[in-house]
Amino acid sequence: MPEVYATRRERLRERCTAGGSAAALVTRPANVRYLAGAAPLGAVLLLGSEEDVLLCDGPPSGEAAEGRPDEALEVRVLSRAGGDPAVAAAGAAADQGADSLAVEEHHLTVTRHRALGSVAPRLRLADLGGAVEQLRVIKDEEEISALRIGAEIADQALGELLESILVGRTERHLALELERRLVDHGADGPAFATSVGTGPNSGRRGHRPTDRRVEEGDFLSVCLGATYRGYRCEIGRTFVIGTSPADWQIELYDLVFAAQRAGREALAPGAAYRDVDRAARQVLDSGGRAEGLPSLTGHGVGLEIDEDPQLAPAAMGKLDACVPVTVEPGVHLPGRGGVRIDDTLVVRPEADGGPELLTITTKELLAL
Amino acid sequence: MPEVYATRRERLRERCTAGGSAAALVTRPANVRYLAGAAPLGAVLLLGSEEDVLLCDGPPSGEAAEGRPDEALEVRVLSRAGGDPAVAAAGAAADQGADSLAVEEHHLTVTRHRALGSVAPRLRLADLGGAVEQLRVIKDEEEISALRIGAEIADQALGELLESILVGRTERHLALELERRLVDHGADGPAFATSVGTGPNSGRRGHRPTDRRVEEGDFLSVCLGATYRGYRCEIGRTFVIGTSPADWQIELYDLVFAAQRAGREALAPGAAYRDVDRAARQVLDSGGRAEGLPSLTGHGVGLEIDEDPQLAPAAMGKLDACVPVTVEPGVHLPGRGGVRIDDTLVVRPEADGGPELLTITTKELLAL
Repeated sequence: MPEVYATRRERLRERCTAGGSAAALVTRPANVRYLAGAAPLGAVLLLGSEEDVLLCDGPPSGEAAEGRPDEALEVRVLSRAGGDPAVAAAGAAADQGADSLAVEEHHLTVTRHRALGSVAPRLRLADLGGAVEQLRVIKDEEEISALRIGAEIADQALGELLESILVGRTERHLALELERRLVDHGADGPAFATSVGTGPNSGRRGHRPTDRRVEEGDFLSVCLGATYRGYRCEIGRTFVIGTSPADWQIELYDLVFAAQRAGREALAPGAAYRDVDRAARQVLDSGGRAEGLPSLTGHGVGLEIDEDPQLAPAAMGKLDACVPVTVEPGVHLPGRGGVRIDDTLVVRPEADGGPELLTITTKELLAL
Repeated sequence: MPEVYATRRERLRERCTAGGSAAALVTRPANVRYLAGAAPLGAVLLLGSEEDVLLCDGPPSGEAAEGRPDEALEVRVLSRAGGDPAVAAAGAAADQGADSLAVEEHHLTVTRHRALGSVAPRLRLADLGGAVEQLRVIKDEEEISALRIGAEIADQALGELLESILVGRTERHLALELERRLVDHGADGPAFATSVGTGPNSGRRGHRPTDRRVEEGDFLSVCLGATYRGYRCEIGRTFVIGTSPADWQIELYDLVFAAQRAGREALAPGAAYRDVDRAARQVLDSGGRAEGLPSLTGHGVGLEIDEDPQLAPAAMGKLDACVPVTVEPGVHLPGRGGVRIDDTLVVRPEADGGPELLTITTKELLAL
């Protein structure tokens, strides 16, 4: 397992060297964790010309949720009064004789970037860009295994909620209960703020739970995910409350379901991101639900809940095998509510059975 | 109430004008909320030379937890494909004829800063620095009232927990239960990740709850806070589990309690930040607990849980009336555990009765 991190750092080093920098400074927490095995709060990773160093504000906790630093790394703990670990890292890079340091300009603030320049004025600061994010897109089987366990946990938490009485409870309580169940089943924590929407709030992407109570006849949409060993998955389902859904509910549900299925079926190695998006989107479009369409119908997941690729109309690029993505079209009718259906899947070649569905809760329209 | 926001913006505009910029772009979410009344995800605020505009990625939800945008502001909702609201704001500033725009260099990434420069090449980008953070230090009575309610909620949640059976439950469960109770009592949500530490984990600042179970004889330290109308407070207490604390526990508790009291008593308008810190610190020092002392013994609270001022040895500046701060010294003995005691107080002049304690849960050493 430790050599996984060394291999990842080696791949990044090759890119840096090709870009003319002998050293790189990684500051974005998910990127630090990917390359170092752990990302204690505030920690940064220096890929130096002589050695790689994880610089931390305080001692790493070593707990599973935070990850354990790769033993091949030097871990340097700064006293809290020791200032910004990134600045210390730039000093260390200069001490190692580097003349150029690639930094994550999309993560560093202008102020921090200037502080790096001041501490090591002879160090040329280059841009590492999204190099680590690109390495992170294709997952190894260990990463996929963590996502698979996280998805099982989310399925369990959701399944238990469905067995309980829902009418009369608030969105906020249902969200909190789901988060508690995620932790009960072994998650490090929720992968993102759990979204529960009822009635007119249902079907809104990223809806923040309110004190509205579940009522008979409501749509209830739920979106949750578990973090397991740092990896984050996502599942979303919509239910109807009461014995029989209204016609408009069945119609809307069937439309979103068909769009989501079309998106899932379009997942294959070599498929363009935009084509997957189009597959889902044109179903909604043909159903007359083109207005207010979401800007994306899916995205990558991993150490962050929203990472590359984006499945969106203007996205450039093609899927590879072993890329986990969500497929999550939805329709929200202002004042009435709506439907979202969201799965996490791993792109797999046809010969291996096609896309692997991680979130297996039924997508039938359940009346609860 | 609306004029509060206009007044705040006017004060910022005066600072900008004095600094040579006719326009300012505020991107840090807590700063946007302070000046605009709400900070929908991704929203930025332009203080323009002609008009002030809140630029959002999507429509503001208008919910209490998010705040409501000041009605005197123009709210401009960009389509999600419309790109970064900060870039749109720079364009709008240029359209209004500004030749200089002050930006928050401590918040903007290098990449975003460059994008602002590209969209409006004739606009000179200056640094707004921490101007809004400075305005935020002294609170008005409405802000203090929100903190007071948040503190009451945290006290209630903690009080209820103490009435329940604790032995055998895990740190994670206790933390989740506290967070649920915060929401039950009307909080927008927790002010920060609730920390529960038992046995050897007790007394560690920012300890992330684990699966360790509460045992007889343990120290149990808890740190939690409520967010209410965006304002975040903090309370921390340490208890002992079982009928009678051990001698070392009583001794350590008394020491930290004395340090915390000394810090509280040093709070007064005109007191130097570092003197408040020293008051608490020297008690720990004289008790032989100088090593491993925390880098700070308190900090400001408000729209963020950790804001100016810092009560730390190297901090420059003096307290004003109506500044809410925490006083939170602690000692952690590796392998054994420790004690933290943490209150939120508002600095008040002697004539008004001295510091106002917002978190009123007892600080006696309770054996639970």
